[in-house]
Amino acid sequence: MKFSWPIRVYYEDTDSGGVVYYANYLKFFERARSEFLRRFNIEQDILITEHDVIFAVRQVSVDYHKPAVFNDELSVTSEVIELNKASLVFRQVIHREKDETLLCHAVCKVACLSASKMKPRPIPDEIVQHLAGK
Amino acid sequence: MKFSWPIRVYYEDTDSGGVVYYANYLKFFERARSEFLRRFNIEQDILITEHDVIFAVRQVSVDYHKPAVFNDELSVTSEVIELNKASLVFRQVIHREKDETLLCHAVCKVACLSASKMKPRPIPDEIVQHLAGK
Amino acid sequence: MKFSWPIRVYYEDTDSGGVVYYANYLKFFERARSEFLRRFNIEQDILITEHDVIFAVRQVSVDYHKPAVFNDELSVTSEVIELNKASLVFRQVIHREKDETLLCHAVCKVACLSASKMKPRPIPDEIVQHLAGK
Amino acid sequence: MKFSWPIRVYYEDTDSGGVVYYANYLKFFERARSEFLRRFNIEQDILITEHDVIFAVRQVSVDYHKPAVFNDELSVTSEVIELNKASLVFRQVIHREKDETLLCHAVCKVACLSASKMKPRPIPDEIVQHLAGK
Repeated sequence: MKFSWPIRVYYEDTDSGGVVYYANYLKFFERARSEFLRRFNIEQDILITEHDVIFAVRQVSVDYHKPAVFNDELSVTSEVIELNKASLVFRQVIHREKDETLLCHAVCKVACLSASKMKPRPIPDEIVQHLAGK
Repeated sequence: MKFSWPIRVYYEDTDSGGVVYYANYLKFFERARSEFLRRFNIEQDILITEHDVIFAVRQVSVDYHKPAVFNDELSVTSEVIELNKASLVFRQVIHREKDETLLCHAVCKVACLSASKMKPRPIPDEIVQHLAGK
Repeated sequence: MKFSWPIRVYYEDTDSGGVVYYANYLKFFERARSEFLRRFNIEQDILITEHDVIFAVRQVSVDYHKPAVFNDELSVTSEVIELNKASLVFRQVIHREKDETLLCHAVCKVACLSASKMKPRPIPDEIVQHLAGK
Repeated sequence: MKFSWPIRVYYEDTDSGGVVYYANYLKFFERARSEFLRRFNIEQDILITEHDVIFAVRQVSVDYHKPAVFNDELSVTSEVIELNKASLVFRQVIHREKDETLLCHAVCKVACLSASKMKPRPIPDEIVQHLAGK
């Protein structure tokens, strides 16, 4: 399943080069992953407090093709391309809405941790089932 | 006592208007307050873990006179202008180093909280003595 | 007219104190002001390129009442409380959606500048009419 | 040549998971690249205005090993591992100062652009000579 989330570019996201600052795309990617989970009614604050589960990024790789600029409306897609026992891999792509230009894409490996011990733990079954599209 | 802390402006701090984004001066002000405390060997992580003390901003007021730009070297001064039982007030001023231009100034009220209860508590005596210049 | 804009709190907005970092509310306030203008079909990128107009914050004053936390859904209201020839003043308030708790409020003075000269200039008539509710 | 730059972790850098937010390491990496250039008296604002040169990140890949936390003192190393006509590749590593723990490392490809046209252009000879260690 590919999930798309709209994001507006505000001044806070840009830099004096006139484009979105390169680190800020990682914020956009995370917002989109959070909304991807929310779509399955997975609320990350409840994951922590009730299920002792927190997700942590282990690896991220970003290709910057074209820059986003102030006031752009973007769409960020999220897709699980690998689902392991205690980790998963997202592919995420950002397009500019108005002309569908590809701006950047990322591959992001996320580990499932015990929130109390900060050690790897299996992804809860319910989440696995959602992510596997079952 | 007035304490001065140098800060360099990087791309992350600027926006597409070509100047430092207005919220980011608050980051500069807090870095300067943290270094002001460190000068008295007050480390905020130890305050939390060993003394159950955390400082939280209750009120901030900023006047923006001239903008800082990419690559500027700034100096941020911090000065305690009011010292109460469970709160204190800082006055902070930012200048551009090379021409001493006044860029902005802030007044910032900080409360002393119990880190575990997040309730107001008295500022520890040792800190009061440092801040009162005794 | 009071305009309300919803904002979700993501990890990027929080700090290790477990709450939204104090500078980041200023980002929320600006997003809400931008959407307030957009409601009148005022797009700030077009203002710059076609009308030589850019808005710059001259003064901001924030009272922090209660902290927002990770995953909160907030509403940010924006209201023009003063409309001058070349500046305007917003009052803005942030509530947590689920329990309507007042979290913080701000008063923010914004100047209208020529984007090319960065000097004060009158607010364009069309914008004045929108903001004055005419 | 490997160049090391110290960075202090402030509240602004952390998130409510109690660690440095994953996007913020990219800010640290860029500060370190900027200081690496400054060490050769290369000031990026002058590069833009006098030499029509701006550097833009094309690709970044980060491995997160251990998290940095509030108040940590970090060292960020920068090293050019590939030097092409119109681009270069940095390897960068972040350690915690007090116990020399490896926290994360990045490989970052940067393109040299004409600042006025935003098109690739050769890296100026003088910079090439510095970076090649000649």
